[in-house]
Amino acid sequence: MLEKIQFVKPEEIEARSMAIIEEELKAKNAFHRWSPGEYAVVRRCIHTSADFEYADQLYFSDGAVETALRAIKDGAHIITDTKMAASGINKKRLSVFEGQVHCFMDDPQVAREAKARGITRSAVCMEGGSQVEGKKIFAVGNAPTALIRLYELIREGKVQPELIIGVPVGFVNVVESKELIIQAGVPCIVARGRKGGSNIAAAICNALIYQCS
Amino acid sequence: MLEKIQFVKPEEIEARSMAIIEEELKAKNAFHRWSPGEYAVVRRCIHTSADFEYADQLYFSDGAVETALRAIKDGAHIITDTKMAASGINKKRLSVFEGQVHCFMDDPQVAREAKARGITRSAVCMEGGSQVEGKKIFAVGNAPTALIRLYELIREGKVQPELIIGVPVGFVNVVESKELIIQAGVPCIVARGRKGGSNIAAAICNALIYQCS
Repeated sequence: MLEKIQFVKPEEIEARSMAIIEEELKAKNAFHRWSPGEYAVVRRCIHTSADFEYADQLYFSDGAVETALRAIKDGAHIITDTKMAASGINKKRLSVFEGQVHCFMDDPQVAREAKARGITRSAVCMEGGSQVEGKKIFAVGNAPTALIRLYELIREGKVQPELIIGVPVGFVNVVESKELIIQAGVPCIVARGRKGGSNIAAAICNALIYQCS
Repeated sequence: MLEKIQFVKPEEIEARSMAIIEEELKAKNAFHRWSPGEYAVVRRCIHTSADFEYADQLYFSDGAVETALRAIKDGAHIITDTKMAASGINKKRLSVFEGQVHCFMDDPQVAREAKARGITRSAVCMEGGSQVEGKKIFAVGNAPTALIRLYELIREGKVQPELIIGVPVGFVNVVESKELIIQAGVPCIVARGRKGGSNIAAAICNALIYQCS
């Protein structure tokens, strides 16, 4: 069995993977008219999931990637609703621009407040995120309720994100919350449909951060 | 737009999601003859990815779930090749049985050794994992090279895992490494094909841990 495995140098694995993705996107006629910045995001989402559906499902508001890159270079903070996404985002590369990653999911105060108000911890976290000083990028990889709360906060004039990455995954209000955020009038990158997740949220953040270097 | 969103109590979201998954699996004729323990794993993988392909792609060696549950109850440690999976595994629930989660990817010694030997950090991590005392479950969500190294370590008699969760994602040697581990003669749960990832690795661990309570 081992002889079927072809040795690839560690430093060449990612480049080879990206080349395969590009080749297959073209073979499937799924290579859309992305800007180079958008394509870097699409490719990294497929790289992290091996799921070519992201080529069709990723929605970019006009100029969202360019706005995000400017914000990151200006020290924007990333606020996320999942510890896994926070763990996967390249914090070292982000810190070069003085941005930090914030996730309030483990804060006992968040749990208490969510319980008292009968809402999700993720929704409470978005309120906390709105209080972070400076430019803000929200990366929602888990909870549609986080996107819904963000929409409300924007409507109430309580937050003006530089970008919303709307990629919660699941079956209850997921599709609807994503369509809602597309209508919110702020720059966004959204994985339409049910798919997404913390891995996709982290992949999009990293695809943006890597373009800033 | 907001009126399209139906309020669901936070504590009911997961149960409702699981019910939708079961309904759709039956509607798609994709409800296979899993044992109850296997089905809990399948369902949680779909829950974390919204990807029904896992119903067809998840491979369980005979009795793998039962062996894993016994091992967890006996205090088995979980060793993973990704920080995101380590972050996503429910460590609190695992610690009830005295198991811990180990991930050596950030160890500077691992990076040095990988560079010196021209292999991946993930492969080096599996060697470190083999040294962990007690029963061991390996959860590989990123690197096929970790699975390949594990296969070799088993062949060399250097480790005898209770379970291997083989769910790396990607394009280079991923499919082959999974088929290799299925041949390794140890209990395994494998996502055949290219798909997988740290989210799937964590979901499988959690589906097992939750069955032990």
